[in-house]
Amino acid sequence: MACECDMSNSSRHTGERRTLIVGLVCLDIINVLDNYPLEDTDTRVQDQLWERGGNAANTSVVLAQLGVKTEFIGTLADSTLSRLMVEDFHKYGVLIDHCIYHNNCKPPMSCIIVNSSSGTRTILHSNRSLPEVMYEDFELLNLNNYTWIHFEGRNVEEVLKMSERVVMHNGQFIESHDRIQISLELEKPGLKPSFCKLLPKADVVFLSKDVAKESGFQNGEECVLKFSKDVKPGAVVVCAWGELGAWAVGPNGEVVHSPAFPPAKIEDTVGAGDTFNAGVIYALSRGSSILEAIMQGCKIAGDKIGHQGFKIDAGTVTT
Amino acid sequence: MACECDMSNSSRHTGERRTLIVGLVCLDIINVLDNYPLEDTDTRVQDQLWERGGNAANTSVVLAQLGVKTEFIGTLADSTLSRLMVEDFHKYGVLIDHCIYHNNCKPPMSCIIVNSSSGTRTILHSNRSLPEVMYEDFELLNLNNYTWIHFEGRNVEEVLKMSERVVMHNGQFIESHDRIQISLELEKPGLKPSFCKLLPKADVVFLSKDVAKESGFQNGEECVLKFSKDVKPGAVVVCAWGELGAWAVGPNGEVVHSPAFPPAKIEDTVGAGDTFNAGVIYALSRGSSILEAIMQGCKIAGDKIGHQGFKIDAGTVTT
Repeated sequence: MACECDMSNSSRHTGERRTLIVGLVCLDIINVLDNYPLEDTDTRVQDQLWERGGNAANTSVVLAQLGVKTEFIGTLADSTLSRLMVEDFHKYGVLIDHCIYHNNCKPPMSCIIVNSSSGTRTILHSNRSLPEVMYEDFELLNLNNYTWIHFEGRNVEEVLKMSERVVMHNGQFIESHDRIQISLELEKPGLKPSFCKLLPKADVVFLSKDVAKESGFQNGEECVLKFSKDVKPGAVVVCAWGELGAWAVGPNGEVVHSPAFPPAKIEDTVGAGDTFNAGVIYALSRGSSILEAIMQGCKIAGDKIGHQGFKIDAGTVTT
Repeated sequence: MACECDMSNSSRHTGERRTLIVGLVCLDIINVLDNYPLEDTDTRVQDQLWERGGNAANTSVVLAQLGVKTEFIGTLADSTLSRLMVEDFHKYGVLIDHCIYHNNCKPPMSCIIVNSSSGTRTILHSNRSLPEVMYEDFELLNLNNYTWIHFEGRNVEEVLKMSERVVMHNGQFIESHDRIQISLELEKPGLKPSFCKLLPKADVVFLSKDVAKESGFQNGEECVLKFSKDVKPGAVVVCAWGELGAWAVGPNGEVVHSPAFPPAKIEDTVGAGDTFNAGVIYALSRGSSILEAIMQGCKIAGDKIGHQGFKIDAGTVTT
């Protein structure tokens, strides 16, 4: 299948150049119940897991398993609990040399309620004191080391400065394979209108169902079509919509759709979107078409939700 | 007001004899939101607190603040997280010399969702690996050190053996002030019918609203009247019912009721029942009547829910 956008470059993953993921790593305390708890009750959970979480961190460990040389940059509290996160990155071979450690901070944490009957995950996130990655941290990176940089769209003003630095870096190259591809995830509602400034900086924009709904869109097709007017020419806009699959639109304006690939039994939907994003980045960076890429994303996310955690089954990698 | 049961003894709190509380200490991660989260959403909480929790531990720190020499016995994981709990006991002057430390365990934990609009607290509790206090641990205690022993009714078979040891110990004394008063909290539903064996061992039985409802009772009065047939002659049966206050019945069969004393604004209902229990134990051990005791419990619990945590306002102590 022909590539619909200019992201194919087989030389991109040779040598030491790598994919950089910028965003959050946190502690996830995952409470598994067979129903969603009624308010004001006292329940013993079926299982409780302490896991490394965070959208960007999740995407990193999936990409690394797909054979992509991956680096994560984020902030870490100088705390015993952070060991759990560092060990998980090491387990999957994700580089974290440029992470920033802060003293006297508590790590951000999500209490997550997984309903094993319905497959839902309800997230209660808290960051009490740990600063986000700042432009000053990002400025220290040698951008020549990277082929792709993915930003979790959190602290918009800082991410804007980071992405502008990458755009400026790209300006010095004529050959597209020398340029760094920029992807951007906008998952959390409540960042509008400020995130609109970010949209023209990215080559690939991932919008969540929550952000789509906040913008008044009823489905993924409507979302990608409307947001495609706000991105830079030639950019790809992607919107995953849970069990309905994912939609995307690229330079030619044609909307493509992939169905979801649900497992026989849903076990753990935490990080399904982050896994989808990793699948799409992986496929696009290897020169797949947009449709192939979102199908890869849906397949790998479908596999992920069939079991606990982020161990990827090689059989789901099709591109 | 005359004492309605044989618990008055002003000499009980002189010297080194103390109150022992047997049960759980755990880590509470308290997530404060202004509403109860909808299933499958991703919410940033208003506040997140890591606190020492556990019913027995909560009762201990309240009793200690009321001037009662208090010891807590429970199990602790030999883990960094346990430091938080130990420091909290020290802060309130609760003795923990007989606590049992277990290697290679994770501390029990509750993820709690506090709805600051409605005042509800929804508890998701997990104990992955830490053993409960066993009879073998309790057997090492010198019972001559104690005037009152309060059991959190958890591991029923073990608590039964412990309470039988205290009953046997009491059998050697003719004078009632030499005997140890036994109180028992039955808070969690799901322990019936096994907990019925515990009922005849205690001088004071605390039943929760949840246990009352599980037994088919629609209100506190019905609950204490019916359960009073299962306890030993002369025992006191108490049932607190949230905003409706508390009911109790003693040796003379008369049911007494205390209204609740809610604060102007409810801030934190976590541990309200444990605080109520401490107020009742405190008042009964000082010779107050049953009515005075449940009023003391309701007042101190009402004060507690008006602010975060377990710091007691001396103005609420009336007996």
